[in-house]
Amino acid sequence: MAGLSEEARAKLRKVSTATLTTCLLRRGFRTRMMTDVRSAGPANRMVGEAYTLRFIPAREDIDQMSNYADPANLHRRAIEECPRGHVLVIDARKDARASSGGDIMVARLKARGCAGIVTDGGFRDTEGVVATGLPAFHKQPAAPSTPILHHPQDLNVPIACGDVAVYPGDIVVGDSDGVVVIPAAHAEEIANEAWEMTQYEIYAETRIAGGASLYDVYPATPLSRADFEKLRNGKP
Amino acid sequence: MAGLSEEARAKLRKVSTATLTTCLLRRGFRTRMMTDVRSAGPANRMVGEAYTLRFIPAREDIDQMSNYADPANLHRRAIEECPRGHVLVIDARKDARASSGGDIMVARLKARGCAGIVTDGGFRDTEGVVATGLPAFHKQPAAPSTPILHHPQDLNVPIACGDVAVYPGDIVVGDSDGVVVIPAAHAEEIANEAWEMTQYEIYAETRIAGGASLYDVYPATPLSRADFEKLRNGKP
Amino acid sequence: MAGLSEEARAKLRKVSTATLTTCLLRRGFRTRMMTDVRSAGPANRMVGEAYTLRFIPAREDIDQMSNYADPANLHRRAIEECPRGHVLVIDARKDARASSGGDIMVARLKARGCAGIVTDGGFRDTEGVVATGLPAFHKQPAAPSTPILHHPQDLNVPIACGDVAVYPGDIVVGDSDGVVVIPAAHAEEIANEAWEMTQYEIYAETRIAGGASLYDVYPATPLSRADFEKLRNGKP
Amino acid sequence: MAGLSEEARAKLRKVSTATLTTCLLRRGFRTRMMTDVRSAGPANRMVGEAYTLRFIPAREDIDQMSNYADPANLHRRAIEECPRGHVLVIDARKDARASSGGDIMVARLKARGCAGIVTDGGFRDTEGVVATGLPAFHKQPAAPSTPILHHPQDLNVPIACGDVAVYPGDIVVGDSDGVVVIPAAHAEEIANEAWEMTQYEIYAETRIAGGASLYDVYPATPLSRADFEKLRNGKP
Amino acid sequence: MAGLSEEARAKLRKVSTATLTTCLLRRGFRTRMMTDVRSAGPANRMVGEAYTLRFIPAREDIDQMSNYADPANLHRRAIEECPRGHVLVIDARKDARASSGGDIMVARLKARGCAGIVTDGGFRDTEGVVATGLPAFHKQPAAPSTPILHHPQDLNVPIACGDVAVYPGDIVVGDSDGVVVIPAAHAEEIANEAWEMTQYEIYAETRIAGGASLYDVYPATPLSRADFEKLRNGKP
Amino acid sequence: MAGLSEEARAKLRKVSTATLTTCLLRRGFRTRMMTDVRSAGPANRMVGEAYTLRFIPAREDIDQMSNYADPANLHRRAIEECPRGHVLVIDARKDARASSGGDIMVARLKARGCAGIVTDGGFRDTEGVVATGLPAFHKQPAAPSTPILHHPQDLNVPIACGDVAVYPGDIVVGDSDGVVVIPAAHAEEIANEAWEMTQYEIYAETRIAGGASLYDVYPATPLSRADFEKLRNGKP
Repeated sequence: MAGLSEEARAKLRKVSTATLTTCLLRRGFRTRMMTDVRSAGPANRMVGEAYTLRFIPAREDIDQMSNYADPANLHRRAIEECPRGHVLVIDARKDARASSGGDIMVARLKARGCAGIVTDGGFRDTEGVVATGLPAFHKQPAAPSTPILHHPQDLNVPIACGDVAVYPGDIVVGDSDGVVVIPAAHAEEIANEAWEMTQYEIYAETRIAGGASLYDVYPATPLSRADFEKLRNGKP
Repeated sequence: MAGLSEEARAKLRKVSTATLTTCLLRRGFRTRMMTDVRSAGPANRMVGEAYTLRFIPAREDIDQMSNYADPANLHRRAIEECPRGHVLVIDARKDARASSGGDIMVARLKARGCAGIVTDGGFRDTEGVVATGLPAFHKQPAAPSTPILHHPQDLNVPIACGDVAVYPGDIVVGDSDGVVVIPAAHAEEIANEAWEMTQYEIYAETRIAGGASLYDVYPATPLSRADFEKLRNGKP
Repeated sequence: MAGLSEEARAKLRKVSTATLTTCLLRRGFRTRMMTDVRSAGPANRMVGEAYTLRFIPAREDIDQMSNYADPANLHRRAIEECPRGHVLVIDARKDARASSGGDIMVARLKARGCAGIVTDGGFRDTEGVVATGLPAFHKQPAAPSTPILHHPQDLNVPIACGDVAVYPGDIVVGDSDGVVVIPAAHAEEIANEAWEMTQYEIYAETRIAGGASLYDVYPATPLSRADFEKLRNGKP
Repeated sequence: MAGLSEEARAKLRKVSTATLTTCLLRRGFRTRMMTDVRSAGPANRMVGEAYTLRFIPAREDIDQMSNYADPANLHRRAIEECPRGHVLVIDARKDARASSGGDIMVARLKARGCAGIVTDGGFRDTEGVVATGLPAFHKQPAAPSTPILHHPQDLNVPIACGDVAVYPGDIVVGDSDGVVVIPAAHAEEIANEAWEMTQYEIYAETRIAGGASLYDVYPATPLSRADFEKLRNGKP
Repeated sequence: MAGLSEEARAKLRKVSTATLTTCLLRRGFRTRMMTDVRSAGPANRMVGEAYTLRFIPAREDIDQMSNYADPANLHRRAIEECPRGHVLVIDARKDARASSGGDIMVARLKARGCAGIVTDGGFRDTEGVVATGLPAFHKQPAAPSTPILHHPQDLNVPIACGDVAVYPGDIVVGDSDGVVVIPAAHAEEIANEAWEMTQYEIYAETRIAGGASLYDVYPATPLSRADFEKLRNGKP
Repeated sequence: MAGLSEEARAKLRKVSTATLTTCLLRRGFRTRMMTDVRSAGPANRMVGEAYTLRFIPAREDIDQMSNYADPANLHRRAIEECPRGHVLVIDARKDARASSGGDIMVARLKARGCAGIVTDGGFRDTEGVVATGLPAFHKQPAAPSTPILHHPQDLNVPIACGDVAVYPGDIVVGDSDGVVVIPAAHAEEIANEAWEMTQYEIYAETRIAGGASLYDVYPATPLSRADFEKLRNGKP
């Protein structure tokens, strides 16, 4: 699996999307959190490279359920070709009037070792999708059959998802707040920075629980920073 | 209980609304899944004939809380007259700024042996509504008193609910994806077809879990179909 | 803690927002339930006086993350100055494109003995916010950093939150249906009235469970009222 | 033409919907102005009794273009049966994804001496509709054929239109602000009151143009009221 | 100019989008009228083949105003390469928070002999856009600079615009109701059919103006059809 | 009139809001154009300093029509105290369910020499508002009386309007695209820059009309820039 180091991947699994948006803002990125995209069930952490599928609206004479018997169908190909460790990200134009995929497709992604699935539309068989255990993020459940609304047009091109530009290979991270997309070139650096911030946040939370005020620890002061470093280095 | 056979009712309790939308699409029905209607708590399966209540907007001089003391009040009558096994479906014009009903009303429906309640508005006392155990589907919680917003106008006439036409006696099915409405004349046939499809889907899921690809089993191929039939008939 | 008696506070903890909207409607208040504000996790009951924070939109040259290091920052001051037993209510203009606060801030409110936090925007680190155990109500999760969208402008002035006017000192009550705001001058009286209504509702629910109809018990009839009073006074 | 006197009708043609909402508020009516309903072209004043048509959502097997050849079709009957001087008000569930009527239908209403047409959906052939000269109010243009979306279900029953309850015979008034619905029983009285208010407003506008302040004339003061009465009675 | 005959083009200029949606529905097309796309000024009739531009969301490090100095910029190329007689159709994801183009770009399209421009986002300098005289359809004015929101990604690929699938070469027709997209293969036939329908509609309007009822002429009856044919063939 | 020089004011009257958003973006301002705020009639150019009024939601016991007889009423005071040459900007929380002001109030602003009025709610008596000739920008017409929805809370404090932070004294500019707010400290400089850009745009439009391509003139090239300067300096 190219791109992201295992260390960065491991760190990203332990930081929040909120912390990542702060790291991104420091680099001038204000628009990297998807709008109206949330976990289909209780949130699982998700980290992986983006592999994309672009839907356009269906046309009645082109889009039929029978298309799914065709091995060239891009919707099926997306499921079978999304690489291990990657997240399948679907541009569904924020439209959940019909399905972006169902439990069997998601189960296959899981079986193939993919890291998750994201759509700005909706899944059908939501209960089954959640039961697969694969991190799955969408707008809302969407039972009706895909060809009523969506035509799979392209694999692995730059897309829109939840108002965010997603380029193939971008790092996609999800948690209970939703999904954030990190430009590939920044991912290693941001993984480290976010991990560092998270260590401090854990320290701050402990201090708050112990009665410290925001002025004492959040954001960090020179004093709290020094205290944190001391503790971290095992000095009492 | 007229209309639906017990066998069809039992089958419909074991199939998903997603599968039903596919059966409906095969018959040309594209618009039978309600929009923005979901289970008020963890989803219970719901199946029953539609019994309907039509709200129109309240008018300040006509709609008062005191109306509820009148035995002729159609909101109370709907609760008391919805037949056993039926689902009370309320046309609330997709407006959840005030309540379509609360926990006491829903408890009474449950006690009377009704199968569920659906509104495209909202319930109040959502916690209490969920605690009754009756399948209950709405748009979102809606605490304010009904007469601020809704006037009960008709019992058991054709209505709109969640952008779907609901005729009295239509078969209403709900699960975690939401609510689908099957025209009465198609219900027996669709119950059988959906049940058959579901058996195959269970087979396909098992195969996917065992490493099969979508190309192998979904949609069915002549080979997978034969294998499924063989297994089903108990031949190894 | 001024304003609300401990008895009224205790009663308000045991009544629903739905019942409160009915008490309010009797006094001519139709618009005291917030729109699109719900519990960030499984709903905790919340009761407390309103302490308010007014956000206006951010301006790129004024609003920077570095502002949070300034002790004069009103967002931090709101957290540190909201009195014990009070609810911090934030006017975020119903905009959840960026955060109204995160888990560390909420943890501090909790540590300080506040009763809850409400915004018509969204929290970041939703999982962490819920983990603090403080009742927290918002529109939806909102990971991006606050200064992208919000500028803290005023402390404890009258505000809008979820389309409701909130005056400092109003009594704010939350449950699974959402958040209602009781004008301070009416709070004692309404606490008593709602508590009385709730006792009757518990009686009615028991009767409904035992097979009574709505006509028998809901709304109350002279007969059911007498029966209720008899039971309440311990006469068989 | 029953119901409204010719004098009241004439007065209502010369007052604004804004003034009428004030008269309605004085009588406790807060919800009589339609939401999202506006003139299809440059606004013509419209006054007339409501004659109503209720749409429900279309169902693919019931709603076909060929239905329009049937004389029993309620959409055509509504156009042919709406009485002279009346306004045809259509409950289209605020849905303008397909047409509530087009230029030929509107031309026929005009030819029959009706006073206007209102829908909370949309017209097709908007240019043609406007060209008929009949006051026509809708949400937005809606070219697609009616049977894709709407099924005509009832004639002249109480309906919802633009979130307002419309009872047959209510007085419907439209101008550039939109459409207001006056309960029939209040129409004569409100026509007079609004006409009186309008005379004063014309006086106030003249005074404002001459340099008076709001404190001088708006709302009326005892002094300005006396001055107005003097002028009105022809005393210099 | 390939594709559409001059005769079909001329006919399409004289028929309404409403009539075209009826022709499309007869062929099973229910979803070919754009949603929320309307003329930027008083509506001009527009007919032409689709030439498409696909925007994805901007990314702060990629999208800068300075990109427009680059001859490879696809936004500028779209304007310079859209063929004569064609309509430039832009997929702006229904997002009008920033511009899809301004008056200078539209003036250049006009100078190059193009037939129109359509976006499901918005134009800036709306007044200037309208002043060019080129038919221009959008959602609403959108002054902010394009690179804040949009990145031009592809030229002349299948896109979504206003919820409609637009394939390069489809025939795009606009009027005061909005914009309809005719699949290229059906355009000649539909042009003829719509033109025929329009002749009858003109006849029906004349009859309605003369006092005929809908039952007499709309939809056509055998009698009215015969009368129309007679008149058309010049027989009195 | 403090703040803006007469020269800057004159220049701002001749530039578009689109050009101003470009100048603002160069300085890092991405969020200074109001959303969903447009001219109430055919657009008049508007330029002036912001004088603000903050509404909060009405409360039934506090907000009565009779309040308007009180000279302390802030809504009336806003009209009487907004300085000459200034624009009254109203924070109506983007809510147009009731009026932000009507024709008499707007006429008084006009008579007092103010430069315009802006609300992110709506005006009543829209026709009358437009007839005053004062530039007036809102979301949509809103006939119902103000006290149903709005309580005037503050004069001339920082507010939100159409999602933009407006500080008293900011420069507010409106045209057919809507309303942009320039931070006071940047106004002189931006007036000059926008005026320069506009001169070049006029040149570019002339060149485009004469057959030049975007590559020749837009954005400016060294060649086109030199040509423009030459023409401007009157050298043929």
